[in-house]
Amino acid sequence: MNIAMIEAAAARLEGVALRTPLLAAPELDEIAGRRVLVKPECLQPTGSFKFRGGWSAVSALDPARRARGVIAYSSGNHAQGVALAARRHGAPCVIVMPADAPRAKIDNTRRLGAEVVLYDRATGDREAIGQALAEDRGLTLIRPFDEPQVIAGQGTTGLEIAEQAAAAGVAEADVLVPCGGGGLSAGIALALEARAPGLRLRPVEPEGFDDVRRSLLSGRRERNARQTGSICDAIVTPAPGELTFPILARLAGPGIAVSEAEVRKAVALAFARLRIVVEPGGAVALAAALFHPGELAGAAVIVVASGGNVDPAVFRDCLDAA
Amino acid sequence: MNIAMIEAAAARLEGVALRTPLLAAPELDEIAGRRVLVKPECLQPTGSFKFRGGWSAVSALDPARRARGVIAYSSGNHAQGVALAARRHGAPCVIVMPADAPRAKIDNTRRLGAEVVLYDRATGDREAIGQALAEDRGLTLIRPFDEPQVIAGQGTTGLEIAEQAAAAGVAEADVLVPCGGGGLSAGIALALEARAPGLRLRPVEPEGFDDVRRSLLSGRRERNARQTGSICDAIVTPAPGELTFPILARLAGPGIAVSEAEVRKAVALAFARLRIVVEPGGAVALAAALFHPGELAGAAVIVVASGGNVDPAVFRDCLDAA
Repeated sequence: MNIAMIEAAAARLEGVALRTPLLAAPELDEIAGRRVLVKPECLQPTGSFKFRGGWSAVSALDPARRARGVIAYSSGNHAQGVALAARRHGAPCVIVMPADAPRAKIDNTRRLGAEVVLYDRATGDREAIGQALAEDRGLTLIRPFDEPQVIAGQGTTGLEIAEQAAAAGVAEADVLVPCGGGGLSAGIALALEARAPGLRLRPVEPEGFDDVRRSLLSGRRERNARQTGSICDAIVTPAPGELTFPILARLAGPGIAVSEAEVRKAVALAFARLRIVVEPGGAVALAAALFHPGELAGAAVIVVASGGNVDPAVFRDCLDAA
Repeated sequence: MNIAMIEAAAARLEGVALRTPLLAAPELDEIAGRRVLVKPECLQPTGSFKFRGGWSAVSALDPARRARGVIAYSSGNHAQGVALAARRHGAPCVIVMPADAPRAKIDNTRRLGAEVVLYDRATGDREAIGQALAEDRGLTLIRPFDEPQVIAGQGTTGLEIAEQAAAAGVAEADVLVPCGGGGLSAGIALALEARAPGLRLRPVEPEGFDDVRRSLLSGRRERNARQTGSICDAIVTPAPGELTFPILARLAGPGIAVSEAEVRKAVALAFARLRIVVEPGGAVALAAALFHPGELAGAAVIVVASGGNVDPAVFRDCLDAA
């Protein structure tokens, strides 16, 4: 993994992924006590940053291999990103998803032309299921975060942040990123190291599912006790990745854990002040910026709003909580 | 009014207003039966395109005159745009608003530092109230649409559409724009005339409040029978403007009127497929693109989502209607 891979991914993503802007709102600055700049990756095709990594990986494949098809396992956003990338490349696509994933994500993945295989998140091992299907059918497995070309694709978010922060006059700041397996965080950290060394990556997770925060403290890959029961389904993973954790251990600042109540408020404030739809898992970084000011440094903070695929009922609940 | 004024406004807005992207979603293309490109002006500071016109007008004032203060009358979005522009210029600001405007808009305007004067929409004449206050206090009145520098500011949206459509390979298309007094529509029409003559402005209004559509048919400024009772409060005005109507009569294609049921569905689809928050009045153009395909020409359609300041209760209703 290096900056050249991220820049090559950026070239492949040119005109395909959105160069998302940095949004601001005076009301958020007041709550946070510092300037808040939000990068709305929920506006990407398929509704999350995952399209960057999916496209990066599918477009990097040898054409003959790509034509045989790809497979991914995902709680939803990676699934949709890979499915759309595969469809636009004319490649067959199988997605392995937990049976309790939000209905909207399962439906959207099927609508994007993928074959969906469901498994039980509590008892099944999605990696084993994915690898078995890949071998049976000659598909190429695209892992959601422990995959160099996926990390490179997510890292293009960091290249844009480096340029946009400089244009906004921000040379030093924490960059808060919702963190599951760590693909987005690791990719952004690598991009910032090379292009904006005054910006520091800070992974953010829900309380009770803060494996990355604890791993950064202990220096080894810690696991979550549970893998279900969070409103932030998009970023619940068993443990930091084998590829992503060493990158984070070298480059990331301390992790931050936020409560579900803080996440709901962040979703409601993104609705009212930024006019964007952010799913709970995508709003943890905004929650940290707004409600954990004492854990941050600097006069400005940059926040990634990583995804916006949320069932209407959950969204309504969040608006009620505000 | 000419293209040079719009380009001068664009220079003043550089680094202040957002250059909003063009969003797309395969599911919307399927519904519409053609390619749909959406310009989310709801992402602007203060949540609508009105910040462009407000900033354009306030920044164009002579500094000594600006220091005495500005006044605007508005159902809400123009109010917020002018209030923020005035605050950032250090100018006092008075806003005259209807007492039945959405609570969120009144609160937001006060939070932006403006003095809010309420009037009764059914019995009061906001123009007379505004002019009287302006004379009493030496304030400069900034009209919401019949104001050349406001039209020039809104027209910067059209400059961006011209460039972005070309980059997306769209040379001929209808450009659907939510239309109240016609400032945004007139500004965009002038920009397209000069920079993208294959793109045609089409104003869109709610059924029962389609004064611009009827005026384009009759060739003279028709009035709406009612000025209250629409979910699309942001774009309900008595009649087309004196300055804006001649521009629209020369450059616009036929107007389109959409039903409230169509508007609610468009709000829900913008939530689910684009992950943006659009208020009902800002969603009429998307409704026309999705549900009035027979009134449009071409393989692609460009849609402006003009604002996103909506009370949570109204937004929830729209999600229920989908």
